[in-house]
Amino acid sequence: MTNDLMARRESVLGSNVPTFYEVPLHLVRGQGVWVWDDKGQKYLDCYNNVPHVGHCHPHVVAAISEQAATLNIHTRYLHDGIIEFAERLTAKFQSQLDQVIMVCSGSEANDIALRMAQAMTGKTGIISTDNTYHGNTMAVSQLSSRKPPIGGYAANIRHVPAPDTLRPVGGSTQGQAEAFAHEIQIAIDDLEVSGHGFSGFLFCPTFANEGLPDLPQNFMKPAAKVIHAAGGILIADEVQPGFGRSGDTWWGHDWLGLSPDVVTLGKPMANGHPVAAVVARAKVMSAFRNAFGYFNTFGGNPVSCAAAAATLDVIEQDNLVENAKLVGAEFLQNLHSLDHESIASTRGRGLFIALELETDGVADEALAAHVVEYARNNGMLMGRTGRNRNVLKLRPPMPFSSNNATLALDILKLAFQNAKS
Amino acid sequence: MTNDLMARRESVLGSNVPTFYEVPLHLVRGQGVWVWDDKGQKYLDCYNNVPHVGHCHPHVVAAISEQAATLNIHTRYLHDGIIEFAERLTAKFQSQLDQVIMVCSGSEANDIALRMAQAMTGKTGIISTDNTYHGNTMAVSQLSSRKPPIGGYAANIRHVPAPDTLRPVGGSTQGQAEAFAHEIQIAIDDLEVSGHGFSGFLFCPTFANEGLPDLPQNFMKPAAKVIHAAGGILIADEVQPGFGRSGDTWWGHDWLGLSPDVVTLGKPMANGHPVAAVVARAKVMSAFRNAFGYFNTFGGNPVSCAAAAATLDVIEQDNLVENAKLVGAEFLQNLHSLDHESIASTRGRGLFIALELETDGVADEALAAHVVEYARNNGMLMGRTGRNRNVLKLRPPMPFSSNNATLALDILKLAFQNAKS
Repeated sequence: MTNDLMARRESVLGSNVPTFYEVPLHLVRGQGVWVWDDKGQKYLDCYNNVPHVGHCHPHVVAAISEQAATLNIHTRYLHDGIIEFAERLTAKFQSQLDQVIMVCSGSEANDIALRMAQAMTGKTGIISTDNTYHGNTMAVSQLSSRKPPIGGYAANIRHVPAPDTLRPVGGSTQGQAEAFAHEIQIAIDDLEVSGHGFSGFLFCPTFANEGLPDLPQNFMKPAAKVIHAAGGILIADEVQPGFGRSGDTWWGHDWLGLSPDVVTLGKPMANGHPVAAVVARAKVMSAFRNAFGYFNTFGGNPVSCAAAAATLDVIEQDNLVENAKLVGAEFLQNLHSLDHESIASTRGRGLFIALELETDGVADEALAAHVVEYARNNGMLMGRTGRNRNVLKLRPPMPFSSNNATLALDILKLAFQNAKS
Repeated sequence: MTNDLMARRESVLGSNVPTFYEVPLHLVRGQGVWVWDDKGQKYLDCYNNVPHVGHCHPHVVAAISEQAATLNIHTRYLHDGIIEFAERLTAKFQSQLDQVIMVCSGSEANDIALRMAQAMTGKTGIISTDNTYHGNTMAVSQLSSRKPPIGGYAANIRHVPAPDTLRPVGGSTQGQAEAFAHEIQIAIDDLEVSGHGFSGFLFCPTFANEGLPDLPQNFMKPAAKVIHAAGGILIADEVQPGFGRSGDTWWGHDWLGLSPDVVTLGKPMANGHPVAAVVARAKVMSAFRNAFGYFNTFGGNPVSCAAAAATLDVIEQDNLVENAKLVGAEFLQNLHSLDHESIASTRGRGLFIALELETDGVADEALAAHVVEYARNNGMLMGRTGRNRNVLKLRPPMPFSSNNATLALDILKLAFQNAKS
């Protein structure tokens, strides 16, 4: 059955279309933190952040169904939905971040953010880290070291060494923040000398794709100082940390004490409905809107706004940020009890946790792959990330409970025990 | 009420966010070919092509609701939905166009198409017409003469004169096809000399944004010959003509007798749900997939596929392509009876009709604006396009009936009579 589906998939979608797992998982149903495959097997979802308030949450489904039956149209007509949602959304941000563009994907959001930096500065140079992914448009793929662009990187792009827990930039954990800022300064100077000039720095406030390094709360302060001193735009990509995943604050940049100029949102925003957004200072929005007549046909339509508003409802009504904080802290604490010599670091905040695996001081990608496959074969979904794909990634839907965390821990224990024998 | 909403809109979305009409329309409900505003006023929708099978079609709404309640997840897990839909979709195309990437917007689709051309040819030059719009990403906005990119056009972009009914390329209607091909040849040669090389030509098979010129069925044959002779990729942007709008064929390129290498789809594909796609020859898909590890989180999710499949169902079951042909032909015929000296050309195919307005041989944008406003104030939505915004655009949802066409004609008669006095 799965083999037949795989053959049909390759025939009609082409080859090199990624799937997870040695034997791809054929899913048919989801509810809360659970998904079911075509054989009726149930899996605890510790991977998917897109179904943020739980798979198929009835409040979000009802909002989508009701609005889809009432009106779905573009934003050149007036509609209450986008305005009410945009007001609720911006109220979650620092006061200067008070305007919104709604789009369909995090890639579209980051594609706009880059142009906002260029419109504000009149320059084109962009800096990101050297171990990241910010999306799939032609422009944004320039920043994605995981998926290099066709034809190689453009001349206006610079990549700085990504922060790291075990191998800190500059060599020491204590000096990493200053060393990171120094690398950004070097890149800025290089862009200015090259004639492109420096327009902005785009980063994920939890450095999720970089491997979720353990960083102090003031880590980005020196970098932000360098960026703003050079007249650059600070762009926080909250596609992964946003909407309270880290349990402390709604946004990763707030935990870091930053005042970004632009924030991009995506994946979890409407629980899987294709919705994303750019939140920006009014002067940045104005510079972009004056420079380019942007319009997005699907962006901000009434159904998308209803889905996004319903997702906000559930986060608020079910105290999911608080849940992420409490359950995440307990889960992290218990994960420290995992007993395997190759677990070099156990870290995270809220419901985003990483276990970095090394054997004899070398990234152990094979062990990470084993644990992920073992979990899949024993009823639990998880992933891996990091430069060497040796960092286990636990990032469940936000209604994840203490009981769910206990089950996940039990499966991980068996996975590591099984690896020893 | 509307004024208050406008003020809140400007406050939270920023200024320069486009609306239609002198007094923006605040819509609250849609059904079939009708929409209603906040005062209960009903409008015949002769503008919106996104609600392709009619506003809020119950079959599409039910498909979205049911799948959203069952499972919504990305495509790195296997799911029947995307495969069944992709098989149905590609069956509508010439046999060589047999593979699909699903994305969220026509902009994302065209952004991929450009990279397919570059991956296939190893060159970067792209050609489009000089009066067009193909989307809003940083890369695709290079092709959009309506919304020029920030910082000006890149060096690898060429724009050729758009085909035109009243002012044909090369000066004569009879010679326009050869003259257009010749302009493309000049641009190709220029790209090759400049070192960028020629990778592809991206165009809308009905030249919708160019003003929907009246062109013979063999119009693109000389251009296609020139493009393929130079080793370039022919990309048909079917975001507007696709899914049977022109009544003769499912796709504009089929009516033109072309064999494109890549086809992009968007707006009408899932009746307003954010769904778009790229359909390509297997070798083109393979070149792209080998060059770039493309993945789209929302693209092809089960809900999007259910919405798109349900839209196909309705087109097929309600014979909407045939309806577009019959009603469109009758509507066009009757529109010729409109009596106003400034109607310089009445043209179109299926349910996509244009009336070009000139007074004393000069584009009459003011008259076009008057007719659009008059219609809005008398219960009918329509738009305008063309280089001088003097081409009235009628592009209703596909279930548009003879009675709807009669009403539209009556309102247009009054609009033109009113303009005379």
